[in-house]
Amino acid sequence: MKVENIAILMAMHDEALPLVKLLQLQQINKGFGKLPMNIYAGRYKSIDINLVTNGKCSKHGVDHIGSQAATLAAFAAIEQLQPNLLINAGTAGGFKSKGTKIGDVYISHPNICFHDRRINLPGFREYGLGNYPAFTCPDLIADTGLKKGVVSTGSSLDFTPVDLQVMQSCNASVKDMEAAAIAWVAEMHELPFIAIKSITDLIDNETPTEIEFVNNLRKASENLSEKMEQVIGFIWQHGLR
Amino acid sequence: MKVENIAILMAMHDEALPLVKLLQLQQINKGFGKLPMNIYAGRYKSIDINLVTNGKCSKHGVDHIGSQAATLAAFAAIEQLQPNLLINAGTAGGFKSKGTKIGDVYISHPNICFHDRRINLPGFREYGLGNYPAFTCPDLIADTGLKKGVVSTGSSLDFTPVDLQVMQSCNASVKDMEAAAIAWVAEMHELPFIAIKSITDLIDNETPTEIEFVNNLRKASENLSEKMEQVIGFIWQHGLR
Repeated sequence: MKVENIAILMAMHDEALPLVKLLQLQQINKGFGKLPMNIYAGRYKSIDINLVTNGKCSKHGVDHIGSQAATLAAFAAIEQLQPNLLINAGTAGGFKSKGTKIGDVYISHPNICFHDRRINLPGFREYGLGNYPAFTCPDLIADTGLKKGVVSTGSSLDFTPVDLQVMQSCNASVKDMEAAAIAWVAEMHELPFIAIKSITDLIDNETPTEIEFVNNLRKASENLSEKMEQVIGFIWQHGLR
Repeated sequence: MKVENIAILMAMHDEALPLVKLLQLQQINKGFGKLPMNIYAGRYKSIDINLVTNGKCSKHGVDHIGSQAATLAAFAAIEQLQPNLLINAGTAGGFKSKGTKIGDVYISHPNICFHDRRINLPGFREYGLGNYPAFTCPDLIADTGLKKGVVSTGSSLDFTPVDLQVMQSCNASVKDMEAAAIAWVAEMHELPFIAIKSITDLIDNETPTEIEFVNNLRKASENLSEKMEQVIGFIWQHGLR
């Protein structure tokens, strides 16, 4: 697939900063009206790039994160920027039991699900899980050396035993807070979507997520920006395939 | 506050049907472009009414429910319909320990929170809980006899022990799947917002939520529509106060 206009959605400013610098993107002043999201725009050779961060909560002074903000950022980006590829890039948790190490970078494959939408009514169980397909791009994966895995999304940084059960039943390799919400919006717009996630913390070790997240955010974000440049470079040369 | 244009957001078709009939609303064909949401429009005396339902998932054939769909419905409704009051009406769970009975109708007061966004990082803990204020309207509450309570939102129909702890710490009387997401979007647009919730199931009894929900959806939706007509009637006579 030929790609001319990529929207990259990233929740947190600190996750996005290395990539904004690497791609020499410039912040656009007007942004999205009353929404807090920020747009950083530029070009990579012949491809238009718009990187959207969620912006800050005016009440709590922290970045908007989680699936509600991701939903809104995705919709606003699609409507206003009219991309023909949507990428959600960010940091996430991984599983030591799957051989994952801090700083590994994953691509969503083959799908993306929710692990905290338990709706035990006929038809709604599957709706809640989501199971959105990520765009299939074996050549990109082979070229960049990205690890492949199911990405599972929930609204919390930590997880409950039930969340873990659902993640295991979906064979999740990556736990994040945004990808499935964006996949849902992308699917409604019939827009190709992939998630690229750099691992800040291991779910199945003894260190609490929040400690590993803070310690590894910078390294994981730098790895993410390098891999994202490779991804965009491949797409420029070969399209998304 | 004078109200001329109300947007009523309701997740499920079956929740909305009695109110659509009671207010003699007509479905608008074009709706919201690629979004699945439906608009039912009409007037109550001098007030413009747009009732928005989330519409159906084309893959699973069920209504879109939960906080992601609620976020998108709220944003699309605000942008396209330009209401000066947003009401989220729907069914919800209640607490027997607070004297709640099936079919009771609550208004969000004084606030609305999330019970499944645990983010144990500095500043993010409070961000995750949300604690959005509902519009203060003591005269409306006195006139309509609505029960008052904190509404707490999560992405699941059931709840985990941790969800329950958070609900209790927020003094929640009502557990739903939409209100806090809509409150977040309303707050960004500085738009007055209230939630009106009719109880289909009791959280702290032994019958599973999904059984009570199915058994009581019709009765609760009828009670909801009657109370909603009282609410709109009061607002037409006196404004929102």
